[in-house]
Amino acid sequence: MKIALVGIGKIAVDQHVPAIANSDDWELAATVSRSGTVDGVPTYKDIETMLAENPEVEVVSLCLPPVPRFAYARAALCAGRHVMLEKPPGATLAEVHALQDLARAQGQTLFATWHSRMARGVAQAKAFLAGKSVTKGHITWKEDVRRWHPGQDWVFAPGGMGVFDPGINALSILTEVLPAPVHLQDATLEVPENCQTPIAARLTFTDRITADFDWRQEGPQSWDMWIEAADHRIELQMGGSKIIIDGVDVTANASGTSLLGEYPALYAHMAKLVKSGASDVDLSPMIHVSDAMTLGKRVSVSAFDM
Amino acid sequence: MKIALVGIGKIAVDQHVPAIANSDDWELAATVSRSGTVDGVPTYKDIETMLAENPEVEVVSLCLPPVPRFAYARAALCAGRHVMLEKPPGATLAEVHALQDLARAQGQTLFATWHSRMARGVAQAKAFLAGKSVTKGHITWKEDVRRWHPGQDWVFAPGGMGVFDPGINALSILTEVLPAPVHLQDATLEVPENCQTPIAARLTFTDRITADFDWRQEGPQSWDMWIEAADHRIELQMGGSKIIIDGVDVTANASGTSLLGEYPALYAHMAKLVKSGASDVDLSPMIHVSDAMTLGKRVSVSAFDM
Repeated sequence: MKIALVGIGKIAVDQHVPAIANSDDWELAATVSRSGTVDGVPTYKDIETMLAENPEVEVVSLCLPPVPRFAYARAALCAGRHVMLEKPPGATLAEVHALQDLARAQGQTLFATWHSRMARGVAQAKAFLAGKSVTKGHITWKEDVRRWHPGQDWVFAPGGMGVFDPGINALSILTEVLPAPVHLQDATLEVPENCQTPIAARLTFTDRITADFDWRQEGPQSWDMWIEAADHRIELQMGGSKIIIDGVDVTANASGTSLLGEYPALYAHMAKLVKSGASDVDLSPMIHVSDAMTLGKRVSVSAFDM
Repeated sequence: MKIALVGIGKIAVDQHVPAIANSDDWELAATVSRSGTVDGVPTYKDIETMLAENPEVEVVSLCLPPVPRFAYARAALCAGRHVMLEKPPGATLAEVHALQDLARAQGQTLFATWHSRMARGVAQAKAFLAGKSVTKGHITWKEDVRRWHPGQDWVFAPGGMGVFDPGINALSILTEVLPAPVHLQDATLEVPENCQTPIAARLTFTDRITADFDWRQEGPQSWDMWIEAADHRIELQMGGSKIIIDGVDVTANASGTSLLGEYPALYAHMAKLVKSGASDVDLSPMIHVSDAMTLGKRVSVSAFDM
């Protein structure tokens, strides 16, 4: 199937382009970007022209920042194409509901992706926790924003989500593996005095689950969580790519799509969704972020410059 | 049917108690409150005791502030009672989804009320706009927080929602009457330097709909909106209790439950829901508030004291 990629920035070049290139399902037929290009692939400045000149492109994959994403998704759906959204699926919950309604009304596929759910240990963690009662858990998600988002000032602008941009990856894993949903009870958000979005957040959920997000971590990066349930302890490390159950590393037991890598697994799932005429839109990670932004106590911290 | 009222504060005394007293459907059998009482009705300090000692109470109506509400709602549902929630239905979206799941699993009624939707002009506005294309609209919702929330400091604490506490009433009307959903594109939130929640907000939605919320309005209070659609102009004034279409006041054409008054209409609707085994939970007004808190640009303004 022919696919177009919109927004040729760091995540597109690092992940989307190679995932598409190495897949038998997909052929990258066009890109839309203000500045980025992919060798040998026609580039367009605006999506309307791309859609008009490429009627054979069945799927549009969007990896723009969340704020401008809606207009592109709507244009692609209105032009009869299936749509795949980078995380988070939008700048607002209401706009994603609008896209869901539009895709449903037109019988097209909408896939709101959560790449971290495709990490190698996640499916095993979900299977292990199924039916068990969770008693406690903690997420530590600390990275260096300057290393992962060089020059991307939009992350600290309204709608940029701040530390929830990586934090939502942790929440996408948590909501996937937990046997029963939790909700936020308390949150503290550290907002630099020159920014609109938090650079750090501490969250407390029901079932004694807590999270510690920080975007100021230099040196080793931490993308880890542990969950205790029914006298067992499960650890997901390195963004979910490593799984330890009761002290034993069981990562090697991964099977199926867990072996593909995160982005290749997303594109394999999208191919299946299109073939079966289904959609996959789970907003629960984004709901937790909205809840934290609504309920959270804001504390002003030192100015931060990218 | 016997009903218990939890949280005997200003809204309970002003609205819930008389609405229940004047209804043939309901009998107020118990209250739960730290300090408030209703003459001739047994009062409890904690909900567990009330539920245990009053097995004949079928419905629990909660008019506590949003942050503590979840625990009470859960206790009532787990004790097999139907539940009615004051607006907003919770402090987080995730917790309301959890209550929905619980009510559904147990076959009980959950009613997330939006009292402003029961104002006299709303049903006529909805019927008039049905099938029309909206081209523009504006909400002006300006009131004096000191007059309506005397001593209620929780409105400016995390989770208290600030000016969205009244503003969500406007949004509950907007989402009810619009023929197609809109979503937020831009928001500015004015937050007093000694508060955690906004005292004023300006919102821009799709379909050229804007809103202006302010909690510092002394003198005459404004709870008005107008919507233009297909060469018509519809105005809802005084919180939706007055409707003007193309310059003509048509409020007197109201019929059915629109004539009951807001809270009596809510309790009449709850009686119908319980009898038919249905629930009514529409989160769209709360989603717009969460979106504004997530996407909004915060501007610090002068300290405000209640």
